[in-house]
Amino acid sequence: MTTFRSLEWQGDALQLLDQRALPHRTEYLRCPDVDAVAIAIRDMTVRGAPAIGVAAAFGMVLAAQASEATTVEGLRADLAIAADRLKAARPTAVNLAWAVDRLLQAAREPSDSVSALGQRLEALAQAMYAEDIAVNRAIGEHAQALIPDGATVIHHCNTGALATVDYGTALGIIRIAHEQGKRIFAYLDETRPRLQGASLSAYELQAYGVPFKLIVDGASGWLMRTRQVDCCLVGCDRVVANGDTANKIGTYNLALAAKAHGVPFYVACPTSTLDLTIPSGEQIEIEERDGREITEIAGQAIAPTGTEVFNPAFDVTPAELITAIITEKGIVYPPFAENLAALMATAT
Amino acid sequence: MTTFRSLEWQGDALQLLDQRALPHRTEYLRCPDVDAVAIAIRDMTVRGAPAIGVAAAFGMVLAAQASEATTVEGLRADLAIAADRLKAARPTAVNLAWAVDRLLQAAREPSDSVSALGQRLEALAQAMYAEDIAVNRAIGEHAQALIPDGATVIHHCNTGALATVDYGTALGIIRIAHEQGKRIFAYLDETRPRLQGASLSAYELQAYGVPFKLIVDGASGWLMRTRQVDCCLVGCDRVVANGDTANKIGTYNLALAAKAHGVPFYVACPTSTLDLTIPSGEQIEIEERDGREITEIAGQAIAPTGTEVFNPAFDVTPAELITAIITEKGIVYPPFAENLAALMATAT
Repeated sequence: MTTFRSLEWQGDALQLLDQRALPHRTEYLRCPDVDAVAIAIRDMTVRGAPAIGVAAAFGMVLAAQASEATTVEGLRADLAIAADRLKAARPTAVNLAWAVDRLLQAAREPSDSVSALGQRLEALAQAMYAEDIAVNRAIGEHAQALIPDGATVIHHCNTGALATVDYGTALGIIRIAHEQGKRIFAYLDETRPRLQGASLSAYELQAYGVPFKLIVDGASGWLMRTRQVDCCLVGCDRVVANGDTANKIGTYNLALAAKAHGVPFYVACPTSTLDLTIPSGEQIEIEERDGREITEIAGQAIAPTGTEVFNPAFDVTPAELITAIITEKGIVYPPFAENLAALMATAT
Repeated sequence: MTTFRSLEWQGDALQLLDQRALPHRTEYLRCPDVDAVAIAIRDMTVRGAPAIGVAAAFGMVLAAQASEATTVEGLRADLAIAADRLKAARPTAVNLAWAVDRLLQAAREPSDSVSALGQRLEALAQAMYAEDIAVNRAIGEHAQALIPDGATVIHHCNTGALATVDYGTALGIIRIAHEQGKRIFAYLDETRPRLQGASLSAYELQAYGVPFKLIVDGASGWLMRTRQVDCCLVGCDRVVANGDTANKIGTYNLALAAKAHGVPFYVACPTSTLDLTIPSGEQIEIEERDGREITEIAGQAIAPTGTEVFNPAFDVTPAELITAIITEKGIVYPPFAENLAALMATAT
């Protein structure tokens, strides 16, 4: 169905879709060793937290394959060096460190031989790859109960196959509805400053054949006021214990507009994004990013030289604006504090 | 105080600030005849409804100066041709036709000579020029009762001297506060799709020395949630009888966010923008503009080829989200239906 694949393991190399060339060119980069993977993560050839994590896992596999160590201990030493190199590629990406550490931990378990350890790591990376797809598909399938035939939805940022191994979260819901034969129409927020909606989500929906229109972020309220919109679908970077949700800047304004128009507002995420150790959104630290993300577009200045900006990368949508949180384990409704805790206590 | 002037009459030519070169270069274009003025309006060297109106008025004066007619009737015929040329430059701009018609009407009054008629038109254009400044200054001065010392405000689009002869409406309020010695800090919505906030309002505030930061439109709610914001200030394209207000797309989302945070939302406009013949916002027709305004920035495509858009140029903010409407005759509070009618009934 799709015409692209964000990452693909080839047995002796990791092939990545070069996301820097999107939406204009679909180009692939073959990474034959861990250095090539680290560079691809750093220069954003591959992006999206789950996609980066799985790419790094295969980077570790490539490091094991390239190792000239003749003992398991020697291989572990080489893997430790590779792990540092991968983690340094984007130091703030939580999934990256999490994925690399998962491989390191597997390497610490007893092994009969260098080749047995190498095979174990490759099997683990492939399991992580498959797991990401399965989790995303499960999110998309659970969500179908909320998506009527003929639905019109608003989507923010990019939450699709490009940010993951395949399907993605909120955009995966739209894709699965379409694959199931539902008629679904998406309005895509362009999502300033980085325009992931315009460049990436539009690219994906075009590839899937889902009909859509692009809007500026400021038009969402007027759209809901003047046209039928059945729901808003967003992904998220973190959901905390009371249901407050951090996501790409602009999510909160969309949620306020949805509330004002009685439009359901759904957050889609894997349970790995739930962070129930944090009580509420007030404790989430929000990263501010380089002002040039706002003042320059495609390398061209759009504001006078010297213009200062306020450029938070994320905002926090309070739980009371969220209708439901859709995970691979099922749909969670308010009260979130109680129901998220119960979900996490459930055996998978 | 300012370092630029949107338009200036030089007795035998109209000098225009070339707004297409903003914010990077401050360049002036000398228009020695009506054709040069018409071209400057069409190619958006000059923009902003009031600025276009006054430019067209001087275009009529230049047509009178260039006329070789030896009779008043002959001059009137030349003026009729010039009027058509000017109106055709941007057929949808209401102020343009209004200004040209005002000059045509003055030309129809009895005249002793060609030169007397020419002088009358020049005096009228100069009066319109002065009137625009006076009206804008009055708006800005009335508004000061609402702007505390140390205020932080959010402003949408461009509503400043660049859109008018001088001062402007909402941005003029910020400038006058600054000129009066108040400490005022402005957050400027960049205002997609045309980025008037980033390019024009930032240029103006930099010229006036008013401290400001630029934000993406989607960040306004998060800004109000996490920092002290005293009010939102916007201009408008039309206010109807019940107070519903049409303005640049994104205004409605800003108003919804302001309401959610209890932040006062002020609309600034001359009484010439009030259209009390229309009962409510539902009767306002909203123009949809070329999709390339969204899919291309600075001539570069940001979305895949073939991407469709929903691109309304304006939205309507319902009266219940508006705290007050600031005009040159004073500040109008709810109930707007009653109080706007009373304002217009007042002798100036």
